[in-house]
Amino acid sequence: MKEEALEYHRSGKPGKLSVEICKPADTQKDLSLAYSPGVAFPVQEIMADPERAYEYTIKGNLVAVVTNGTATLGLGKTGALASKPVMEGKALLFKRFSNIDSFDIEVDETDVDRFVEIIRKISPTFGGINLEDIAAPACFEIERRLIEALDIPVFHDDQHGTAIISVAGLLNALEIQEKSLADAKIVCVGAGAAGIAILNLLLESGAQKENILLLDSKGVIHSQREDLNQYKRPFAVETDKRTLADAMQGADVFLGLSVGDLLSDEMVLSMAEKPVILAMANPYPEILPEQAHALRGDIVMGTGRSDYPNQVNNVLGFPYIFRAALDCRAKVINTEMKLACVEALRALAKEPVTETVLKAYGLAELSFGKDYILPKPTDPRLLEKLPPAIIQAAKDSGAA
Amino acid sequence: MKEEALEYHRSGKPGKLSVEICKPADTQKDLSLAYSPGVAFPVQEIMADPERAYEYTIKGNLVAVVTNGTATLGLGKTGALASKPVMEGKALLFKRFSNIDSFDIEVDETDVDRFVEIIRKISPTFGGINLEDIAAPACFEIERRLIEALDIPVFHDDQHGTAIISVAGLLNALEIQEKSLADAKIVCVGAGAAGIAILNLLLESGAQKENILLLDSKGVIHSQREDLNQYKRPFAVETDKRTLADAMQGADVFLGLSVGDLLSDEMVLSMAEKPVILAMANPYPEILPEQAHALRGDIVMGTGRSDYPNQVNNVLGFPYIFRAALDCRAKVINTEMKLACVEALRALAKEPVTETVLKAYGLAELSFGKDYILPKPTDPRLLEKLPPAIIQAAKDSGAA
Repeated sequence: MKEEALEYHRSGKPGKLSVEICKPADTQKDLSLAYSPGVAFPVQEIMADPERAYEYTIKGNLVAVVTNGTATLGLGKTGALASKPVMEGKALLFKRFSNIDSFDIEVDETDVDRFVEIIRKISPTFGGINLEDIAAPACFEIERRLIEALDIPVFHDDQHGTAIISVAGLLNALEIQEKSLADAKIVCVGAGAAGIAILNLLLESGAQKENILLLDSKGVIHSQREDLNQYKRPFAVETDKRTLADAMQGADVFLGLSVGDLLSDEMVLSMAEKPVILAMANPYPEILPEQAHALRGDIVMGTGRSDYPNQVNNVLGFPYIFRAALDCRAKVINTEMKLACVEALRALAKEPVTETVLKAYGLAELSFGKDYILPKPTDPRLLEKLPPAIIQAAKDSGAA
Repeated sequence: MKEEALEYHRSGKPGKLSVEICKPADTQKDLSLAYSPGVAFPVQEIMADPERAYEYTIKGNLVAVVTNGTATLGLGKTGALASKPVMEGKALLFKRFSNIDSFDIEVDETDVDRFVEIIRKISPTFGGINLEDIAAPACFEIERRLIEALDIPVFHDDQHGTAIISVAGLLNALEIQEKSLADAKIVCVGAGAAGIAILNLLLESGAQKENILLLDSKGVIHSQREDLNQYKRPFAVETDKRTLADAMQGADVFLGLSVGDLLSDEMVLSMAEKPVILAMANPYPEILPEQAHALRGDIVMGTGRSDYPNQVNNVLGFPYIFRAALDCRAKVINTEMKLACVEALRALAKEPVTETVLKAYGLAELSFGKDYILPKPTDPRLLEKLPPAIIQAAKDSGAA
C-alpha cells in the first residue's frame, strides 16, 4: 500500500485539497464586488455587527483542523509539519461527508499556554475548531481552555468523536448480547485522550464506575497508584487486580485503545459469557476478529478497520456533529449533543439499509445484529439523520 | 453598489471561497489512501525529510493571507473579524490570477512580538505568507522579523506589491515624458507602508534621495522634524519647504497615497513641465483625471481606479510574484525579484495587446503611451511573462 498511498498524495497536484472561488470572478465588475471597492460594504456591516460575518464570509461553514503533531495517528510525536497529510485528510473527510469547508493548521508549539493563545488569536477566521492528534494529557487542558475562551464550538475529535462512536457501538452490542450497561463489567486499555473520553461518556450513559477497570502502560489504575494525573485519578478503584489478565477475568466488555496483538487466547476465554470486544488499535487491533471468533462463538466484536464488520470509525461522527453545530450556530458541543449523536447512530443501525449502501459495499444484505452494530461510513442517511437530532439536543440544552 | 456588493457576498453560499477535494475520495479504497491507514506513509516520508511536504501536501501551492485588521483597505482599524471579506477577496485574487491556493487567517493581535510569534508557529502549514493590511510602522518590523525567522517567502503586499506596480508605472510614464528617474523631482504624500516602500524601491531603481520630498500628515518630512520614526527618518531632507503646495512647485512626479481630493488646481499648475501624477488614494484619488487633464495637456496620470486609464493595481504583481516564488521554492522575495517584476511589467506594457485583452475591456486598441503605461489586470500574458522573469532573478540572486 505504501507506493500507492505516496502516489495518491503526489500525483497531479500535490496534496489533497484546493481552495476554490465560489462566486463569479471573471469580469472587472465581478472583481470590483469581490475586492476593492465593493468589499468595503460587508466589512462595514461586520464592524457594525460581528454576527454578520456569518452572512458575508465563509466563517459559518469553516472548520479548522488544528494540531501540534504530538500524537499523529498511531505514529506518536511526528511534529507539526509531518502531520500535515493527516490534517489535510481530515479536512477532506469534512468536505466529503458533510460539505464543510475545512483547512488544516499545523502549529509548531507544544506548550499548552502558548498553543491555546495561538488558537484563540486566530479563531476569528473560523466557525469551529476541530482539535486533532494532540497528546494526552495536554489535550484535555487545551480543549477545556479553548471552550471557555471561545464562542465557537471546539471539539477534540480523538476524545469525543471516538467516544461517541464507541459508545454507540457498545450500547448496540450490549443490546444484542442482552446485557445492560449499568451491570456491565468494563475493561478499557489505554488511558489517553480516547480512553478517558469513552469512559466519561459511558458514565454519562449509565455505566457504573465500580464496574470499570482502566489500564495504562503500567497496568490497572487502582487506588494505591501514586503516579496518576488528574484525568486518570477519577478512575482509580479499590481492587487487587493488577494485570490485564487479572482484569479480563469475568469482564463483559473489552475496550482496546492500545496496541495490536495485546489479547491472549486465555484472556478472551476468561471473559464473561456473551462478551463485547471493541479492539480499536490501528491498524492492528488488540486481537483479530478471526482469532477471537475461533476461540468462542458468543462474542460481538468491532475494530477500527474497514475490512472487518463493525468498524468503529470517527467519520461516523465529526462531520455530522460539526454540520449540526454550524447550522444551529451552537456555541459549544455539549454532552447532550454527543448523546443525541450516540442515539441517532444506534437508531440508524437498526433501520433497514438502503440499496445504495449495499451497492457501495458490494453486500447482499446488512441487518442489525452481531455483524452490523453501527452504520457504514458511506451511508448517505447519516447526513440526513444525525444533524437534525444533534441540533434538537443543542436547542433543548441551550447550546444554540 | 452597496446592495449589490452585499448580495454578492451573501448569495448562495456565504463568502467567496470553498475548500475542495482534489483527489479521488468516493470509495472506501480512496479514503483508505487519503486518510488512515494510507496517510501514514507520507507522514513518515516527511518525518524523514521535511522537504517532502512539498511533494505530498498542498504546502507548495498554499499562501496564507494574514492580517490583524489594523489597516483594512482604506477603512483603517476594522479589527480582525471585520477584515475577513477583504482577506477572502485577496485569496480569491490569488486563485483567479495564478491558480495559487490561498486562505485567510485573521489574527486578533496587534502586539508585534506576539503577532510574529503566532505566524511563526503556524507557518509549517504554508508555502508562503502574504501579509495584508497591517498598519505602519508595525508592518515593517513584523515583515522583517518573519523574513528572518522563516524559510518560506514572506511579503507584505501593501508595501512591496504597491511599490512594484507604482515604480513600473512611473518608469514607463517618465519614459513617455522623456525624463530620467535620476533627475526627477518626486513628491510622495503618505508615509505609511506603501509610501515608504515605493520610495525605497525608487532608490534601488536610481532615484536620488535629494530629489525626493516625502510628506506625512504633518507636512514635509525635513531634517528639523523631531517626530520621525526610523522608517521616515531616512527621507528627512534639508529643505525650507513645509507644505504640500511648497513641495509641488517644480515637481516632476506626484505620488499620492493619502486621501481623495487633496491636490488643488494651483498645485498641479505649479508642477514642472510634462509631469507624472499617480494619484492612488482609493476610491477617490488625490485629483480626478478629468480635472487634472483639463488644467494642462502635458500630464501622464494614473490612479487606483479601474474606470480610468492607467490603473495602478496590486493584482498586477502579487499573484505572479508568489507564483514565481513557489515554483522555484525561493526562500525570500528579494529586491532583485521585485525589480525583475518591475521590468517585466514595463516590457509587457510595450508589447502589442492581444485581441483577448481588448475584448475583455471592450476596447478598440491599446498601445503604449500616455493612456496605457501598465498592462491590464486581466491580461493573460501576465501569467506567461512575469513568473519566468522573477524566477530567473531568484536564481541569479541566490534566493532559490
